Amino acid sequence: MSAKLRIIPLGGLGEIGKNMTAIEYEDEIIIIDVGIMFPENDMLGIDYIIPDFEYLLDKLDKVKAVLFTHGHEDHVGAVSHLMKHVKAPIYATPLTAGFIQVKLQRAGLHKDIRLNVIQAGDVFDVGSFTIEPFHMAHSIPDCVGFGITTPVGLIVHSGDYKFDHTPIDGWPPDFAKLAEFSQRGVLCLMADSTNAERDGWTPTEVSVSAAFEEVFGDAKGRIIVASFASHISRIQQVANATYRHGRKLAITGRSMRDNVKMATDLGYLDVPNDLIIELEQAKKMPPSKVTIMATGSQGEPTSVMGRLAYGRDHRLSVEPGDTIILSAHTIPGNEETVTRIINRLFQRGALVIYEAMTHVHVSGHASREEMKLLINLVRPKFFLPVHGELRHLTQHGRLAEELGIPHQNIAVVENGTIIELTADSLEVGQRIPGGYIYVDGDSVGDIGRKVLRDRERLAESGYFVASISMGKNGKLQGKPDYVTRGIVNFEADFYNGLTENIETMLDRHGQKPKDHLKQIMEETISRFIYSSTGKRPMVSAILQ
Amino acid sequence: MSAKLRIIPLGGLGEIGKNMTAIEYEDEIIIIDVGIMFPENDMLGIDYIIPDFEYLLDKLDKVKAVLFTHGHEDHVGAVSHLMKHVKAPIYATPLTAGFIQVKLQRAGLHKDIRLNVIQAGDVFDVGSFTIEPFHMAHSIPDCVGFGITTPVGLIVHSGDYKFDHTPIDGWPPDFAKLAEFSQRGVLCLMADSTNAERDGWTPTEVSVSAAFEEVFGDAKGRIIVASFASHISRIQQVANATYRHGRKLAITGRSMRDNVKMATDLGYLDVPNDLIIELEQAKKMPPSKVTIMATGSQGEPTSVMGRLAYGRDHRLSVEPGDTIILSAHTIPGNEETVTRIINRLFQRGALVIYEAMTHVHVSGHASREEMKLLINLVRPKFFLPVHGELRHLTQHGRLAEELGIPHQNIAVVENGTIIELTADSLEVGQRIPGGYIYVDGDSVGDIGRKVLRDRERLAESGYFVASISMGKNGKLQGKPDYVTRGIVNFEADFYNGLTENIETMLDRHGQKPKDHLKQIMEETISRFIYSSTGKRPMVSAILQ
Repeated sequence: MSAKLRIIPLGGLGEIGKNMTAIEYEDEIIIIDVGIMFPENDMLGIDYIIPDFEYLLDKLDKVKAVLFTHGHEDHVGAVSHLMKHVKAPIYATPLTAGFIQVKLQRAGLHKDIRLNVIQAGDVFDVGSFTIEPFHMAHSIPDCVGFGITTPVGLIVHSGDYKFDHTPIDGWPPDFAKLAEFSQRGVLCLMADSTNAERDGWTPTEVSVSAAFEEVFGDAKGRIIVASFASHISRIQQVANATYRHGRKLAITGRSMRDNVKMATDLGYLDVPNDLIIELEQAKKMPPSKVTIMATGSQGEPTSVMGRLAYGRDHRLSVEPGDTIILSAHTIPGNEETVTRIINRLFQRGALVIYEAMTHVHVSGHASREEMKLLINLVRPKFFLPVHGELRHLTQHGRLAEELGIPHQNIAVVENGTIIELTADSLEVGQRIPGGYIYVDGDSVGDIGRKVLRDRERLAESGYFVASISMGKNGKLQGKPDYVTRGIVNFEADFYNGLTENIETMLDRHGQKPKDHLKQIMEETISRFIYSSTGKRPMVSAILQ
Repeated sequence: MSAKLRIIPLGGLGEIGKNMTAIEYEDEIIIIDVGIMFPENDMLGIDYIIPDFEYLLDKLDKVKAVLFTHGHEDHVGAVSHLMKHVKAPIYATPLTAGFIQVKLQRAGLHKDIRLNVIQAGDVFDVGSFTIEPFHMAHSIPDCVGFGITTPVGLIVHSGDYKFDHTPIDGWPPDFAKLAEFSQRGVLCLMADSTNAERDGWTPTEVSVSAAFEEVFGDAKGRIIVASFASHISRIQQVANATYRHGRKLAITGRSMRDNVKMATDLGYLDVPNDLIIELEQAKKMPPSKVTIMATGSQGEPTSVMGRLAYGRDHRLSVEPGDTIILSAHTIPGNEETVTRIINRLFQRGALVIYEAMTHVHVSGHASREEMKLLINLVRPKFFLPVHGELRHLTQHGRLAEELGIPHQNIAVVENGTIIELTADSLEVGQRIPGGYIYVDGDSVGDIGRKVLRDRERLAESGYFVASISMGKNGKLQGKPDYVTRGIVNFEADFYNGLTENIETMLDRHGQKPKDHLKQIMEETISRFIYSSTGKRPMVSAILQ
């Protein structure tokens, strides 16, 4: 009996197979992407989340290659966390390699890791795998999917994609390669499910240029555009519109400036030499001659747009007459912060242009008609929807079934589930333990669910600590010290009442063992607080 | 010079003129609606928010009437909070009065307050105002807007509305009345702006019936429908589909059962006698014969749907083969919890039907084409967009301008802004102080921004309290006691290091005045924690 190929999407409960995937055959493993997840609203105090790769830790020498599909944070952001452990070579296209290089350098890993720059259309071997990166269109240039010829058959991984016939970089997806894979016979297709709930065909990036054209044509004053720092295609479009309308472009925010420099150096941004000016220079020019690009399209309060909305930027302020374009999709969970920013910017007299009103943004992911085309182009035997939450994968799976792929040949699974493939079988195997690894300040992985639950409770009702001195006789000595935050401000009456309660309690129970007494004390305090506020803060008693 | 009419939308920074509005002329005030707001994600621990009516507190005897447009929580939910202070009569249509009556009873206020039941089409006087409620369609029956003839002219308030020609209760909006107002001449129109970013015309409620018909036709097992407890029209539609498909209907959740009973008694729900059965009975029937209605369409973890998704309901569980319909719009800010519920229900093998995939919900608010019709039907001199955030009001104002209302006759203002009207002028006056009143447990209004900021910091990084005994010589006595939650779990090494730090600090500063010493102590502890975790929890020192 020949060995099975194992495909394992890694990560927590969020998007599945998005941030990191392992493909394993006997003693060889290749990894696709190593990105970060953004915390949800109730993951309090968490900076970001990295995929749980504990599964790999006792197999590190089996890892033969780490492949990347494109340069967005959710695909490359955790590269340094992995490459501290894994010494295998990295393979990425030039722009993606540029993003990765910066991260490796910051982590001091750039000397240890071999970073191979590949091109769509290359063919190379890694152990018993043959890897064929092929060009796909998305919202960043230089995206690839991968054809991976394995001992059990050909696997095709779409990467993040949309079938954009007129992408900004003029390089449409490689339909011919997909058709060629199909002729060879594809064992399994892994495909982006992000927009599986969206009918039709995602509009081309070029349609955004038309919207910009209209907004730039109408604008009398300054134009300020917010987008992602890594959204190179959008930056190109803003530069084009700025140039056509005789304006100059100032770029604020370090990450965006760095990315613009790198992408220009690598030839992925085509911007006339004198188009880009310094912000200080822009401030001296007539408003009608100026475009400013900034980060903060998600309403982050510390971003440039966040500071502008709240009037807290010391270099720039929003003036009546400004036109502000939010050219990015609101990431689920950020709706409230974005909507506040929009309200605040209107309040300052700016005209705010955003996705709901004008097409100043289009999705970078395929919609349902494109998904159908991919499946029918590739005609795989087995289908593994990835990149999306369970709801999106489920809808993508149902769509594949409508196209004739048998139900039992489709695997909708969660992260950590091992998919086992042979030339003629797909089996959903066990689920390996694992979940989120939270990054919080300097701590990677030390924060668990318990700490988050504590934070939730603190956020809900605050805390109350009483430090109590007792005499040998078990009676209260002096007055207790109270420390409390995050509850209502208590009056003197409250504290007097509480101290009396504690005194009475100690008269009855003061001689009990300290552990037990501490517990009774905390219950006494909790009850007293609840009866006067209806709230249950975290209560601790220190007995001395 | 004759007096001016003042219109004052009351509330915080959320939706404007949504929850409560005061209309004042000389020594008479009438109030429209007294609803609650739902807290945003960063209003930690807050149950709900009531409008700030401090403006009224020294004018309580001027309030002559409290009018209600309809029975949703964001329009009636804070009635008891106001009616503790205001002894004026309430005016509401029968169903709305039913909702209000329950609230007054719970607050023990029902004997003190006169609740006048009115009908659309009535005309009555309140002091120098003549009030004419007129029928509007929304997602709950018995909605009205108000024509208010004031000494300076006729004000028309739309209430929440959509121009639904085929509402579930068969009672379309009163177009004729609006046209008649127009003939009399309307000084000012106040109109619902909720969907000012949505093009076209909101689909009729009846289109949901068609979607239900399809889903009910396909379902082989149980059908579970989640919606709002107050969504009487939707409950009617579910009952109709249940009846047509030979199923029986069980209703879970106390609030929904209470509402069904009240609406049936008042004749607003038309349900065959034997259609509704008990849940226990439903559980014994074949799945294909059962529909269950539940609350929890917003993914609230303690609601029936929340408990079902997480397998924590002791009476009911989701089984493979169940069809679950989420028939409600996700309120902004709830996207994450709703999406988790959907993922969890798919995980349990149910087929989940939701707004993104099938039209099992339509909005209850007018879209842009309806807004245009309202403005052109009423043809007001002045226009005051209300019911929406500043972004929606701004878009609604721009739309009115496109229809020919002069820019200076449109007032886009925030809550607390006084609008002054005469027969031929509209002025935006001062903004009265005020904002959110947070309700948190038993506390109404005691929680301010400071407590919320503390909770935010606690949620972000937890707290750390050190209780330290010092001798007369200012040296450390014994070992400090530490209490901490919401940070990483510290090892013994950490505590030993911290105690050493405190000892060294006391050797140098132990003789300083206690206040100053406490401050130095807290800084010492903060620095030590930051250097070992990169986090800044709230630190307190108790010196004894």
